[in-house]
Amino acid sequence: MNVLLSRDSQVRAMENTVSNAERYFGQFCSLLASYTRKTARLRDKADQLVKQLMDFANTENPELRATMKDFAEDLAKVQDYRQAEVERLEAKVISPLKLYGAQIKQTRADIKKCKRVQNNEIKQLEKLEKLRQKSPSDRQMISQAETSAQRASVDTNRSTHHLAETVDAFQEQKLKDLRRIFSDFVTIEMVFHAKAVEVYSSAFRTLESYDLERDLQDFRAKMRGAYGHSEARPLTDNSPSLSVPWPLASQSVQSTMAHQEKDEEESEADSVEEIPLEDLKGQHQGRRD
Amino acid sequence: MNVLLSRDSQVRAMENTVSNAERYFGQFCSLLASYTRKTARLRDKADQLVKQLMDFANTENPELRATMKDFAEDLAKVQDYRQAEVERLEAKVISPLKLYGAQIKQTRADIKKCKRVQNNEIKQLEKLEKLRQKSPSDRQMISQAETSAQRASVDTNRSTHHLAETVDAFQEQKLKDLRRIFSDFVTIEMVFHAKAVEVYSSAFRTLESYDLERDLQDFRAKMRGAYGHSEARPLTDNSPSLSVPWPLASQSVQSTMAHQEKDEEESEADSVEEIPLEDLKGQHQGRRD
Repeated sequence: MNVLLSRDSQVRAMENTVSNAERYFGQFCSLLASYTRKTARLRDKADQLVKQLMDFANTENPELRATMKDFAEDLAKVQDYRQAEVERLEAKVISPLKLYGAQIKQTRADIKKCKRVQNNEIKQLEKLEKLRQKSPSDRQMISQAETSAQRASVDTNRSTHHLAETVDAFQEQKLKDLRRIFSDFVTIEMVFHAKAVEVYSSAFRTLESYDLERDLQDFRAKMRGAYGHSEARPLTDNSPSLSVPWPLASQSVQSTMAHQEKDEEESEADSVEEIPLEDLKGQHQGRRD
Repeated sequence: MNVLLSRDSQVRAMENTVSNAERYFGQFCSLLASYTRKTARLRDKADQLVKQLMDFANTENPELRATMKDFAEDLAKVQDYRQAEVERLEAKVISPLKLYGAQIKQTRADIKKCKRVQNNEIKQLEKLEKLRQKSPSDRQMISQAETSAQRASVDTNRSTHHLAETVDAFQEQKLKDLRRIFSDFVTIEMVFHAKAVEVYSSAFRTLESYDLERDLQDFRAKMRGAYGHSEARPLTDNSPSLSVPWPLASQSVQSTMAHQEKDEEESEADSVEEIPLEDLKGQHQGRRD
């Protein structure tokens, strides 16, 4: 009977191994999938930041524009690496963890089958026991029951042995996969972080080399241009709204404006104002070229 | 009139500068705050993974247990650095961006004040214009109006000049802050990623040095122990449920069990038969000890 008990505890130990794998690999899978999704969301958010940085760059003077564009491009590069990280996590970490579902199901089925065979042996032994108690003299019946019990015992041995092999293979595979999956996880993360360090180093140099003074000079020139030195620019042509200089103007001012509008056509060449942007851009482009 | 126009366009250019800063700094602030929150969520998810890895480690054999614990500790270390990243982003990137709100409000108020002064000048000039048309002979009135217009013009000049200085300072501060904030962002990210590379390198070595074979031998010994020599392993001791070997057992089986339990004590030593494996287990334990 002790044999039955020890067999049973072996099967229990195996069940325990498989349940444990099922439980924890399931957890690892769902947590790492969630980790990957959150990484993807971080990438999305950074992509939005890249877009805003680009838009902002386009509203700024050439010096800052170039710096911001370079910086935004570096930030975008990090997101490309993050995207690669996400894809690799899915392929090399989450997918193999998901595969465990199928593998565990198969091993579970093997355990169940083995238990059925074990239970059959027990029944045969019980039958034999009852016969021996009730009809100790019925040699033929007892002999038959002994044969059945023996056959059941052989089945159980074979089944338990097979199960032991299955679970052994399962465990070996589990340990190998565990090491491989987490090594892959670490490698993927390591590669991403190393790439990020590389790109951010370049981004840092970009920001360091930004010539703030030059940018400020541009800004001042632009403001001075707006103040009165843009006579060379036919700005009003491109900006119809600029023909209304005082948006908050009262009626009386509007009449003044009408007056101005007439003047404007005549004096387009020295209509000075608005957006020396164009002007400065021309200058800067020259400088940049 | 051209002077008024150019003044107005200067104020417009200033307004534009400030509105642009307001718009984009606002966007940067909200996107980077969101980026930081998502980073914090990634940290939380990884913390959960650390916890599960620790729990899992405690269910495994010593070799894997040690490896998984070391790995989990490294993963936890990365999260500590991520937490530092989150805190530093909040302090050095998001907070300064938020401060822009107040600064922009002040500059906006300065612009509004300047516009009021400008509008007053325009009104004085209109008044003067009307007088000249309606009562060209009223020298005294015209003279008074001329004085008022002149005074208004002086006010406007002063106010516009003051505004130009304010906006100039604003722009200089904006450019400096922009460079500083994004340099800080890049530095914070760079430090985090560099630390992550460092810790993951150690984690990789931990996983590489994991002795899978030794672990598998432990497992096999444990399984064999469960099969017959449970006296050497505290497996059954810790698992009271193991005293009921067949959870699906029928009544009749339970009576058999009662019988078995009695036998167990007597025949524990020679429950051997089944498995030649038994011997090996003893050996392994010896080896491990």
